[in-house]
Amino acid sequence: MDLQHPFELLGTYAFAISGSLAVKDKEHDWFGAGFTGFLTAIGGGTLRDVLLGSYPLVWIANIHFLYAVIAGVLTTYFAFGFLMRLRKTLFLFDTVGIGFFTVLGVEKALEVGVQPEIAAIMGMFSAVMGGVIRDTLTNEIPVIFRKEIYATACLAGAAFYLLLRSFGVERDWNLILSILSIISIRLLAVRYRLTLGRIN
Amino acid sequence: MDLQHPFELLGTYAFAISGSLAVKDKEHDWFGAGFTGFLTAIGGGTLRDVLLGSYPLVWIANIHFLYAVIAGVLTTYFAFGFLMRLRKTLFLFDTVGIGFFTVLGVEKALEVGVQPEIAAIMGMFSAVMGGVIRDTLTNEIPVIFRKEIYATACLAGAAFYLLLRSFGVERDWNLILSILSIISIRLLAVRYRLTLGRIN
Amino acid sequence: MDLQHPFELLGTYAFAISGSLAVKDKEHDWFGAGFTGFLTAIGGGTLRDVLLGSYPLVWIANIHFLYAVIAGVLTTYFAFGFLMRLRKTLFLFDTVGIGFFTVLGVEKALEVGVQPEIAAIMGMFSAVMGGVIRDTLTNEIPVIFRKEIYATACLAGAAFYLLLRSFGVERDWNLILSILSIISIRLLAVRYRLTLGRIN
Repeated sequence: MDLQHPFELLGTYAFAISGSLAVKDKEHDWFGAGFTGFLTAIGGGTLRDVLLGSYPLVWIANIHFLYAVIAGVLTTYFAFGFLMRLRKTLFLFDTVGIGFFTVLGVEKALEVGVQPEIAAIMGMFSAVMGGVIRDTLTNEIPVIFRKEIYATACLAGAAFYLLLRSFGVERDWNLILSILSIISIRLLAVRYRLTLGRIN
Repeated sequence: MDLQHPFELLGTYAFAISGSLAVKDKEHDWFGAGFTGFLTAIGGGTLRDVLLGSYPLVWIANIHFLYAVIAGVLTTYFAFGFLMRLRKTLFLFDTVGIGFFTVLGVEKALEVGVQPEIAAIMGMFSAVMGGVIRDTLTNEIPVIFRKEIYATACLAGAAFYLLLRSFGVERDWNLILSILSIISIRLLAVRYRLTLGRIN
Repeated sequence: MDLQHPFELLGTYAFAISGSLAVKDKEHDWFGAGFTGFLTAIGGGTLRDVLLGSYPLVWIANIHFLYAVIAGVLTTYFAFGFLMRLRKTLFLFDTVGIGFFTVLGVEKALEVGVQPEIAAIMGMFSAVMGGVIRDTLTNEIPVIFRKEIYATACLAGAAFYLLLRSFGVERDWNLILSILSIISIRLLAVRYRLTLGRIN
């Protein structure tokens, strides 16, 4: 069974919610929230595909992605109070999203034929760049700079995927294990406040 | 008569003025104003074409666009006091610009063969993303988040164009009617302070 | 001898240091510093190539660029105190970087067959857009708006290159002379506080 497409749609849905929720404290109408959800959801994958010159972009070729975004925005609209009462919601949706997007981004880049180091960077870009766009638009310091081990978890998970792949691990298992590794690293980092050192 | 090219140049000129005027209160020299005018004018269409993988970009293939930007920047430079005394100038140039760019963006996307929903988004992107870049560069909250019905007017106008097109309305008439619909929605929204609800 | 590749790697290395150093006062871990160094180093050339539709991107096709970035980030990490004691370090690395990148950007654009005016803009973009991304990410006012004659020096150097080229000056000499012209204009502008006028 090909897990790629349902996983991509799930990640898109999760990111659209994360993006729409992010504008809660700002002067945005619900169109602005939906717009931010849209850019958050498609931003990372779009940047990856533009950098790889891989056309047409997935969300342009396949209208399902747009519907996943709209579903995420509507979910936010109708379940806003519920989602916000769950204080960790934004965080959990985001964590699941970066897990999915990193590994799918690595695979996409490998298909195009780039070197593994570049594929790992493309995986990380797929995962974190939507959030960077979201935070830049809402004038926040981008999440990759604020948080405990975040993009680093994506890079580590990408490396883990490439390692398992070189060992010949079957693809769907590798997909699942690598995604879980990213989610685990991120959850442990936040739980135990793990951080990397400062550069100075 | 093909209205597309003169309309694109007019929209580019209007956006270049809008972008150059936007830096008036900041610590910019006139090069910075011109640079902002340039990115404002070409940003939306460039994003649209990069997303569609439609090369070469219009302003790279056709040097007239660069001249239209330079004309807009020079207009701002020599008529700055005059333009600023007309308090609604920036607003009017911007409104005309988004009308033109939305409809031309929809047409460009349809030519590339995308689905209508995607074409509507591309039209909106063409219109508003130059302003988003302008506001991000000048550290403002992007216009799409601040203003009364703005990007929504573009989306509505794009839908109107697609509707008329499906009814077989002749293209130049459709162009004019759809552009007028966007300008009208925007003017009415500002005149009567129409806003969409907040997401929370 | 082909100077292009070593010059590109040197410019990449210089910009990676400039980007990594830029986050010193912020709440960044060293991953964030490295990430900023990476985007600063590859941002301008990437934008140029995406606008030109010139694939694959140089840093994706050639892994040396990634290594040059990593070397720059490691240099910053291990020599941070040393680099910061030299108060003008960031400035000098940046100046050398824009000199190299402008001229190489012009050449790349000419290879693709664009008009000279567009090639000059592409050269300037190659040089300054990495810094614009760096400053946008760290919530600074972009360097092109803040500083004495900066992007203007790149445009002037690009025009100088195109002039010498039209006179048939041999390429490596032209490369060196044009880069030196940009560095000279920039150094003189800062030394004597040369600025362009304000637009209003």
